[in-house]
Amino acid sequence: MKHTISILVENEFGALARIAGLFSGRGYNIETLTVAPTLNSSVSRMTINTVGDAHAIEQIIKQLNKLINVIKVKDVSSDEAVNLMLAMIKVNLSKRNREKVKKIIKPFQAKIVEADDKCTIIQAVSDEENLKKLIEILKPYGLMEYISTGNMAMQRGKKVIKS
Amino acid sequence: MKHTISILVENEFGALARIAGLFSGRGYNIETLTVAPTLNSSVSRMTINTVGDAHAIEQIIKQLNKLINVIKVKDVSSDEAVNLMLAMIKVNLSKRNREKVKKIIKPFQAKIVEADDKCTIIQAVSDEENLKKLIEILKPYGLMEYISTGNMAMQRGKKVIKS
Repeated sequence: MKHTISILVENEFGALARIAGLFSGRGYNIETLTVAPTLNSSVSRMTINTVGDAHAIEQIIKQLNKLINVIKVKDVSSDEAVNLMLAMIKVNLSKRNREKVKKIIKPFQAKIVEADDKCTIIQAVSDEENLKKLIEILKPYGLMEYISTGNMAMQRGKKVIKS
Repeated sequence: MKHTISILVENEFGALARIAGLFSGRGYNIETLTVAPTLNSSVSRMTINTVGDAHAIEQIIKQLNKLINVIKVKDVSSDEAVNLMLAMIKVNLSKRNREKVKKIIKPFQAKIVEADDKCTIIQAVSDEENLKKLIEILKPYGLMEYISTGNMAMQRGKKVIKS
């Protein structure tokens, strides 16, 4: 089962390397990882998407909590959360197809952010499932490049993950 | 100076730990990092934002290129690129303020994605500078939580980073 783990971590040298090392050292796979400072620049927030059964995830969380610089760890998969990810997709669109594609991608919260004679860059914010659908729709037009973040999860309601 | 480094890496155990370890071991700071699979699921794309002078960045890139599982490394800061990041911001908005804020945030490519009596979650896609402005505007309404990705850069035009 897929899990999204949110980690608050002190912005110190080596914190990321220790966390990544914990996963690889124990044979846990990191599918995606995003880390960036919070509003308090001495604290960063990391979001890790990983696959594992309940027991394995429980073990990971226990181990993460023992690491130096780790402030808080929470598995947000079981919580009601808003899940979003950002993708940038470069497509080989002719000017004629561009207008057509503009309409097709609109339901995906996607839009064209850059275009010249040959290339069009599309920005999309969605969940993983919808992004996969968008990619399938764009394939026939000639995918050139794809960058995405992993899934980012924020709990609904008053719950927050804070230090 | 800020630099955005794009890395294509084989999706193998330990690749992320080795890259993070290289930075911390040499005293290079990682400000933000995002890694997720590309359309080829055996290859991931990593975007690292870091600060350093030209010489330091050149050294990092040399060292990254020597690492096992690293396919390609490119400093996209000097290139013409589209730079975007995704943020999710939870704000303590009353229903009355919600309508007002909806209008204020629109120019920031931001919108409300979730709202109940007490909390509103705003999604924004922008560059770092604009996100900072948005945060300042939202501060008086009561910031509760903030998650963001790092800056994601895609080169304009035909150039792509491929394996």
